[in-house]
Amino acid sequence: MAVYTPPLRDMQFVLHELLNVTDELKMLPAHAEIDADTINAVLEEGGKFAAEVIFPLNQSGDREGCTYDKATKSVTAPTGFKEAYAKYVEGGWPALAIEPAYGGQGLPIVVNQCFYEMLNSANQAWTMYPGLSHGALECLHAHGTEAQKQLYLPKLTSGEWTGTMCLTEPHCGTDLGLLRTKAEPVAGAPEGTYKLTGQKIFISAGEHDLAPNIVHLVLARLPDAPAGSKGISLFVVPKFKINADGSLGERNPIFCSAIEHKMGINGSATCQMMLDGAEGTLVGAPHKGLAAMFVMMNAARLGVGNQGLGLTEVAYQNAVAYAKDRRQMRSLSGPKQPDQPADTIIVHPDVRKMLLTARAYAEGGRALAIYIALLIDRELNTDDEDERKDCADQVALLTPIVKAFLTDNAWLATSHCMQVYGGHGYIKEWGMEQYVRDARINMIYEGTNTIQSLDLLGRKVLGDNGAKLKKFGKLIAEFVEEEGTNEALQEFVNPLAELGDKVTKLTTELGMKAFGNADEVGAAAVDYLRVVGHLVFAYFFARSAKIALAKQGSGDPFYTAKLHTARFYFAKLLPETAGLMRSARTGVAPLMAMDEALF
Amino acid sequence: MAVYTPPLRDMQFVLHELLNVTDELKMLPAHAEIDADTINAVLEEGGKFAAEVIFPLNQSGDREGCTYDKATKSVTAPTGFKEAYAKYVEGGWPALAIEPAYGGQGLPIVVNQCFYEMLNSANQAWTMYPGLSHGALECLHAHGTEAQKQLYLPKLTSGEWTGTMCLTEPHCGTDLGLLRTKAEPVAGAPEGTYKLTGQKIFISAGEHDLAPNIVHLVLARLPDAPAGSKGISLFVVPKFKINADGSLGERNPIFCSAIEHKMGINGSATCQMMLDGAEGTLVGAPHKGLAAMFVMMNAARLGVGNQGLGLTEVAYQNAVAYAKDRRQMRSLSGPKQPDQPADTIIVHPDVRKMLLTARAYAEGGRALAIYIALLIDRELNTDDEDERKDCADQVALLTPIVKAFLTDNAWLATSHCMQVYGGHGYIKEWGMEQYVRDARINMIYEGTNTIQSLDLLGRKVLGDNGAKLKKFGKLIAEFVEEEGTNEALQEFVNPLAELGDKVTKLTTELGMKAFGNADEVGAAAVDYLRVVGHLVFAYFFARSAKIALAKQGSGDPFYTAKLHTARFYFAKLLPETAGLMRSARTGVAPLMAMDEALF
Repeated sequence: MAVYTPPLRDMQFVLHELLNVTDELKMLPAHAEIDADTINAVLEEGGKFAAEVIFPLNQSGDREGCTYDKATKSVTAPTGFKEAYAKYVEGGWPALAIEPAYGGQGLPIVVNQCFYEMLNSANQAWTMYPGLSHGALECLHAHGTEAQKQLYLPKLTSGEWTGTMCLTEPHCGTDLGLLRTKAEPVAGAPEGTYKLTGQKIFISAGEHDLAPNIVHLVLARLPDAPAGSKGISLFVVPKFKINADGSLGERNPIFCSAIEHKMGINGSATCQMMLDGAEGTLVGAPHKGLAAMFVMMNAARLGVGNQGLGLTEVAYQNAVAYAKDRRQMRSLSGPKQPDQPADTIIVHPDVRKMLLTARAYAEGGRALAIYIALLIDRELNTDDEDERKDCADQVALLTPIVKAFLTDNAWLATSHCMQVYGGHGYIKEWGMEQYVRDARINMIYEGTNTIQSLDLLGRKVLGDNGAKLKKFGKLIAEFVEEEGTNEALQEFVNPLAELGDKVTKLTTELGMKAFGNADEVGAAAVDYLRVVGHLVFAYFFARSAKIALAKQGSGDPFYTAKLHTARFYFAKLLPETAGLMRSARTGVAPLMAMDEALF
Repeated sequence: MAVYTPPLRDMQFVLHELLNVTDELKMLPAHAEIDADTINAVLEEGGKFAAEVIFPLNQSGDREGCTYDKATKSVTAPTGFKEAYAKYVEGGWPALAIEPAYGGQGLPIVVNQCFYEMLNSANQAWTMYPGLSHGALECLHAHGTEAQKQLYLPKLTSGEWTGTMCLTEPHCGTDLGLLRTKAEPVAGAPEGTYKLTGQKIFISAGEHDLAPNIVHLVLARLPDAPAGSKGISLFVVPKFKINADGSLGERNPIFCSAIEHKMGINGSATCQMMLDGAEGTLVGAPHKGLAAMFVMMNAARLGVGNQGLGLTEVAYQNAVAYAKDRRQMRSLSGPKQPDQPADTIIVHPDVRKMLLTARAYAEGGRALAIYIALLIDRELNTDDEDERKDCADQVALLTPIVKAFLTDNAWLATSHCMQVYGGHGYIKEWGMEQYVRDARINMIYEGTNTIQSLDLLGRKVLGDNGAKLKKFGKLIAEFVEEEGTNEALQEFVNPLAELGDKVTKLTTELGMKAFGNADEVGAAAVDYLRVVGHLVFAYFFARSAKIALAKQGSGDPFYTAKLHTARFYFAKLLPETAGLMRSARTGVAPLMAMDEALF
């Protein structure tokens, strides 16, 4: 009953009008040949795959869930998932943005970003399977030995095998320094070969029937490891060992011992994994596993933000369709469809407010997510060291914002879109409550949103005295400077400039406070991240409004809608920052004053 | 694995220290004999029933859900629900606050309010069954003929039979004026007897195995009914007709044709009901059914707010227990439990912020909910017509706030409490995600929270030029006046006074705008309700803080905790009003400017 249309037009707007990605990409040797038509054509095909192949499996996958067979310790994904994955591999989709050296198509990451947004809209649970593979691939690409790369990258690129990241243990998730899984050298085996023993939990795609082999990236401790997070190493552990000829060999004792029953993403297998002397090889240097894993984790964090974006978009589309169809009550300002027994509910201001909230969060999130993808394309491919550093700094700053702001927004947006349906929203049949349940995990995994906010304020902002923040602030200042005399843009430029100044002031204040008490960072971080998220969105909406204003004569209603959405954003969503800044300013005392025993 | 301890101490604080309910109740003839010990003893026993009998069925009821048998059109509630209901009836709990004339115990509604908060904490889905009965009983009590009262009230009071309210149809929920169910006079039957035909949906407890008979209150149209909401009449339709001797007779053709599969409250049977000439009698005057039903609906709205309160409290208790037990990371300001491998997570400021948010919403909600229950006790029992009117006005004003503000808060609070658990919060086993799923319906049923906000701003506030709001505002002004020179209370009194002034100003502004365009009400209403909700909470927290400050020498840590919670509320939650007022002020244009086709 649910609907999904790939938002190609808005993607094209962000790619080609807001960010001029082809001009930027052409400066990079790896993408010198890229052109807009290619990008658009790939996204059109990608959208078809999302909408036609995996979207129809979204609700059925949620209802059926994954099945665990205790006797064989095997997991079966919901009906149709395996066949859809085969089509995905057949279509060459896993290889989209992978280096040609490992069999990839070498397209820029901006394309993959848009493609994955559509996959997430269509079926977040299904998308977990290829999504995790992608992270494993990137991690091996960055930290694997040449032998590991040759062994694993082509199979991960083609999608023949999938990947996982095995971090969490029952007693530790956020605090990986506590982890206990052990790795011991295997006597007589080639150097770098270890046997791993321990238990992992919450391993997405840890076991399933979509691919014949699974490549696990596992954090564990070497025998001589120092305690805490400085004693963690990374290993690659295949489900089936690989023979010299590349064929699958012996089953490695890394088994799924149970799957979790969850609030949502029921089509994604969340596995408890037992390692009972499973053989693996070291990735990167001993005891440097956390740093290596962070390559994967940063990509995963952007991926999670993108999940939030995908759900926001699809929930919006469905709520709009319902609001245009469902008749209930008359408009307060008089009947709008007097020939009908009641008006469609889209005439009611608060219904529009809920719809526009989702729309603005989708459009703002899309602009930011594509912007950061372009930064990564530039970071990975530029020859200019200054540019590389500049891009890397912005990526570091914006990653926790994409992860936390987009997923918090998705929780709000999917809940609003469900609310538009009234009681029907609460019924499984309509599919809206699933978006809410699926959206909820995105605020938790790959570092909770609190962890993201601590990363932003503590590490990324205060950690270098605001240097990274200033880089983004400079873009805002330049835009404000440039458009300062543009009368038509004042409704956007003025509040943007004002918020920018307030963020600067707030940052300085928090830095001073944190100097006296580090807990001040923890007290303000969540409010702070949301304020900065709004600043970033306001910047992109102001720039979008500038383009939309210039095109008002074009007759293309897309630009009218863009302008209205930007106005809505500034009028109804940006004001949240007023309360957040007040709350952030009240500091740590109201949180820590109460003795633990009194809770 | 979940825990629940009835919050008797805080209830006693609100009842006996904040509101002095026994002094107030003793002024009323019906409650002249009431004393604090009786109230406390009843609540202690009621808490035991909630915690020991129905709380253990909460998670199992969610997992098992209700079962529909197509052949017999019967519904079976989850295992244990029937036995728990028998204990409830046996314990005399349904009769708690019912008039002795119909077999009730005649206790004040404040007691029932606290009892139901505990039932909702323990098991919202189970509590739907007796909760709906209570509404049916109140409606018949207010609008039934003497014969209807004699027939139904004793059985509903004892709990032998349960009740429902049958309003919604597939094409109408909010807009009951569209309803189509027909009622036709039965030739030869006593006057007032009708046969009803039509379809109802979303009927909670519409069919189940807890009681031998179900008393349906059904909205339908008489043959001569005018179109729209002025042509709706109310009927009482028993599942089994009742013989002259009071025994159950023939099955009435009002059958459950399906049950809904929902996001939550799975233990509550949500039924589609087919009426195929079901026999019923008219309640109240012809075509005046909506007004009669509103007696039930207002009680139900308060009941839904109370569901939100119950979930907020139980989610808080569990999150606190987890936060004191789970160890993860070190405090940013240095290890707090250096002999352990990590600190308990309650040392982290943002974990405390999430916990305190839930705590403050529970305490504020409890104060407001008991306050309104006391108003109803006074309204129903006073001999003084001015007092009655004053109480009724306050109840009318506060009802949409209790319904919408407490349920929105519960959605925020349960989500925060789930977040405290990290990944474990998303796993069904721990029970936290169920609180979030259950909480979500409370924002929808009995009038969506948008409808509540329109009721507040449009009808209750602007509808009488702010007269009802001024009555509550007078209480605030008196408190501010009284404590204006109390140095120690300035941190509460000043922001309370300031917010009160701002609300007055905002109300006037919105009234002016609405005069020009009625859609301005719809645009601002949701923001407005949340602002007024905060004003009401701030008033009760300020009054609570005054008491707590006076008791700081008592050595009772309860008062220390109350004071800290009030400070937290003013520092971290009240600032939300700043953003809400800004958003409300931006008016309707940003919502209505975009053409429907552009969505």
